[in-house]
Amino acid sequence: MSFSLFEKILDPSQIVSGQELESRYHHIWHMDEPLKAICLLTPASTDEVSSIMKICYEHNLPVVVHGGLTNLVGSTETYGNEVVISTERLNSIEEIDGSSRTMTVQSGVILEHIHEAAANTDLLFPLNFGARGSAQIGGIISTNAGGLRVLKYGMTRQLILGLEAVMVDGTIISSMKKIIKDNSAYDVKQLFIGSEGTLGIVTKAILKLEEAPSSRNAAYIGFNNYENVVAFLKYMDSNLAGKLSGFELIWRNSYEQMTSVSNAVRPPLPYDYNYYVLIEALGSHPQIDHAEFQSLLEDAIEQDRILDAVMAQSPSDIEWFFRIREDVNNLVDFMKHDQHFDISLPIPFIGDYIADRYQSLAQIDGVEQIYAFGHVADGNIHFMIGKSNLNDDLKKKIDHCIYDGLKAIGGSVSAEHGIGTHKKDYLNLCRTPEEIVLMKALKLTMDPKGLLNPGKIF
Amino acid sequence: MSFSLFEKILDPSQIVSGQELESRYHHIWHMDEPLKAICLLTPASTDEVSSIMKICYEHNLPVVVHGGLTNLVGSTETYGNEVVISTERLNSIEEIDGSSRTMTVQSGVILEHIHEAAANTDLLFPLNFGARGSAQIGGIISTNAGGLRVLKYGMTRQLILGLEAVMVDGTIISSMKKIIKDNSAYDVKQLFIGSEGTLGIVTKAILKLEEAPSSRNAAYIGFNNYENVVAFLKYMDSNLAGKLSGFELIWRNSYEQMTSVSNAVRPPLPYDYNYYVLIEALGSHPQIDHAEFQSLLEDAIEQDRILDAVMAQSPSDIEWFFRIREDVNNLVDFMKHDQHFDISLPIPFIGDYIADRYQSLAQIDGVEQIYAFGHVADGNIHFMIGKSNLNDDLKKKIDHCIYDGLKAIGGSVSAEHGIGTHKKDYLNLCRTPEEIVLMKALKLTMDPKGLLNPGKIF
Ligand SMILES: Cc1cc2nc3c(=O)[nH]c(=O)nc-3n(C[C@H](O)[C@H](O)[C@H](O)COP(=O)(O)OP(=O)(O)OC[C@H]3O[C@@H](n4cnc5c(N)ncnc54)[C@H](O)[C@@H]3O)c2cc1C
Ligand SMILES: Cc1cc2nc3c(=O)[nH]c(=O)nc-3n(C[C@H](O)[C@H](O)[C@H](O)COP(=O)(O)OP(=O)(O)OC[C@H]3O[C@@H](n4cnc5c(N)ncnc54)[C@H](O)[C@@H]3O)c2cc1C
Repeated sequence: MSFSLFEKILDPSQIVSGQELESRYHHIWHMDEPLKAICLLTPASTDEVSSIMKICYEHNLPVVVHGGLTNLVGSTETYGNEVVISTERLNSIEEIDGSSRTMTVQSGVILEHIHEAAANTDLLFPLNFGARGSAQIGGIISTNAGGLRVLKYGMTRQLILGLEAVMVDGTIISSMKKIIKDNSAYDVKQLFIGSEGTLGIVTKAILKLEEAPSSRNAAYIGFNNYENVVAFLKYMDSNLAGKLSGFELIWRNSYEQMTSVSNAVRPPLPYDYNYYVLIEALGSHPQIDHAEFQSLLEDAIEQDRILDAVMAQSPSDIEWFFRIREDVNNLVDFMKHDQHFDISLPIPFIGDYIADRYQSLAQIDGVEQIYAFGHVADGNIHFMIGKSNLNDDLKKKIDHCIYDGLKAIGGSVSAEHGIGTHKKDYLNLCRTPEEIVLMKALKLTMDPKGLLNPGKIF
Repeated sequence: MSFSLFEKILDPSQIVSGQELESRYHHIWHMDEPLKAICLLTPASTDEVSSIMKICYEHNLPVVVHGGLTNLVGSTETYGNEVVISTERLNSIEEIDGSSRTMTVQSGVILEHIHEAAANTDLLFPLNFGARGSAQIGGIISTNAGGLRVLKYGMTRQLILGLEAVMVDGTIISSMKKIIKDNSAYDVKQLFIGSEGTLGIVTKAILKLEEAPSSRNAAYIGFNNYENVVAFLKYMDSNLAGKLSGFELIWRNSYEQMTSVSNAVRPPLPYDYNYYVLIEALGSHPQIDHAEFQSLLEDAIEQDRILDAVMAQSPSDIEWFFRIREDVNNLVDFMKHDQHFDISLPIPFIGDYIADRYQSLAQIDGVEQIYAFGHVADGNIHFMIGKSNLNDDLKKKIDHCIYDGLKAIGGSVSAEHGIGTHKKDYLNLCRTPEEIVLMKALKLTMDPKGLLNPGKIF
């Protein structure tokens, strides 16, 4: 069997195959489907990854990397003929440098561990989202994840100073620098960020840390029309000068559902408005920031910018406010089957676009629930659609309903989650034929035999 | 003559050659050397650029793009056998979208015009540096320029949402989206950013605008040791929660020279300290921000974090403070010949590294002045060296003195300015052989005939 090829470079405990593979390992997150693969390897060093890749390259073995398996687009699926590299043992935090404000990690480190390590030195790695307890930094880099604080801190791409990756033939590309500025020729690390394991295997990264904020304020605000939401974003952003960190929009029916499941998510505002916004600001002067935030909201009410507002008065209020937004299971649990979306579109178009989709989705037979919410300041809206069956026809109808108008307004079928296998058919709705030709040329240059995560993206 | 090839696609006024070329056009900025080239073309649209490239591709004509010609690394030099494309007519601001906070521009628009247009709608394009009156956005993108406010707003790469570029064969790659998040497959626009015209020709961009700040504070601070400078950066950054926008370090002898040339640059602090820091904060509440900034400085003095501080009390003080730092001619004017540097290195190493260079530079025969200053919060230090002659041997000695230690500490020979022709020989000091092989493979994929800005970078 091909997996014996790896016995000379890895310890037997690092090679999982046969029975054990099927019983312990999975395809994707929270799915019981057992993993189909030649074997799963758990290298513990960059050199081991490189040795594995040399063998795979020589023997033409396709390779799929498994990080935390939390991706939502089928990008870690296997078909049986692949070698799976799991990054679970590449899990060491190699250094935290307080003066450079950097953390050097192997790619299998879990996001939550990064948060904890940063907090221990009064620093912050700002990237944050629901799957933080499982998602690994290598997977996060390979999907260019976003999350709840992109507005203030940027996406993963903005937070990576250095990167090390192994190419398909085992060559190690080391761009491990702690420096913020490096214009010495092409910034090759950009290629590995967001390419879903199709151009190389991320083994290490140097993360940019930020000073940890010492104040946090949050509020829910009610609106009846979308234009006022956009105007309020501008109002808060210009008044908070860099402190605004979150601006999440929830459509009325989503808010009703999100806040009616248990007392832990009881509604902070009554069900009187068409739109609910959850805002967050991070600062460094607890008392001053609280007063400033409050008076901005008071002024906004007085000036008729907003209809209603409730501000968190304690850390437990903040936790409550965020649980409402983050606990998307409260939407999904009541669905027979679900289909979810992660579209991007220019901010001014969002109000009408989403309203139109609500209308036309409701007319599709088999659609049972429609919920919209999202990172509106980033132009990123999520749809969760509940449906009665798994019929492919229904799935495609829903896809087209959500996606078809995006091209005309310069949107994207994926803001954060990537393309994987689920969105391959729709890539051409948001990228031009010329862009796709160029992407394929890059893929051919970096992976001439097509061994890296085959069947994904294209 | 080859330039007649272009007569069927361009107006005669768009084709400059012969006498006119030599009398009106130049090689590089502020140099009298006349331009040597087959011809200079001034396309006014993306389609014209594409048509030009089709002809050049068919006839194997090398192409050099000229933006504002303000680069400092010889990246617009020509040798005579090239077609020069000047972007001077690609100068229209196509749209400002206040809700999306974006500006859509052709690549020949001058940075200062972008600033003015943004300010007219109460928005800010934060990129800023001395050459703003000449540098064009296409050149800025192609060098991934940095400048004085990278700390708060990032480099050019972080400020570009959409991009349009023409490939060597005339293919137009349009990634013109206003959205902040787009994880639909590879982010190909990253390739054109910072590649100095060697991978494609930038024709348009969508710029990310920020809310314009309404308060600006600045101060000069004195220190005697470098560790305190780093600690003070951390202190200000954590207390100003996103408002700190500039943190410039000037070594004592540079400060003395910068402040002794005229009354317009008289010294804000006496010549008592080893290091001078110019800090800037941008906020949204003039009175509150002024008081906060002042009390942070007062506390810092009380807590012995800093030795001395003087805060700007008026806009004209701010102008004075910045003129000292920006007017580098006050250093260069007194040199017989000059050689300048733009290195990047991890923040903790800067103190010792620069001190060592001062010492060893002083021992080189022919070195007459040594000045260091730079964007220390970004790990980016500039050296200006005055020397007695243009001897190549002397030049190389100085280069090696500044560059040779960078590899060991993970630095870069170019933080901002790029490689061009001047730093080609030193690229291998900060990029690995594997990185360079990958870069060359990308170059070959995107420019198989090697027609785009030949002889630059590699
Ligand atoms: C509850 C929940 C909430 C989420 N919220 C958000 C959110 O707010 N914002 C957001 O952007 N995303 C969100 N996600 C999806 C997000 O993309 C992933 O959680 C995360 O980025 C993937 O990390 P992972 O380690 O699980 O990667 P995996 O799922 O294991 O892999 C993802 C892709 O990267 C590849 N890969 C993994 N590791 C490497 C490596 N070392 N080198 C090369 N390729 C590699 C895989 O082959 C695959 O193509 C959420 C997911 C869940 C389950
Ligand atoms: C006084 C002064 C101060 C400066 N301060 C800073 C600073 O603080 N920070 C900093 O980063 N830089 C600074 N610079 C240098 C900076 O890199 C340039 O000023 C600017 O980015 C280049 O713009 P340009 O239009 O002049 O480009 P050019 O000099 O014309 O071209 C630069 C490179 O880009 C290519 N190019 C130009 N246009 C295009 C296009 N449309 N498509 C493809 N390639 C193109 C050229 O071929 C060349 O390789 C300074 C320069 C000066 C003179």
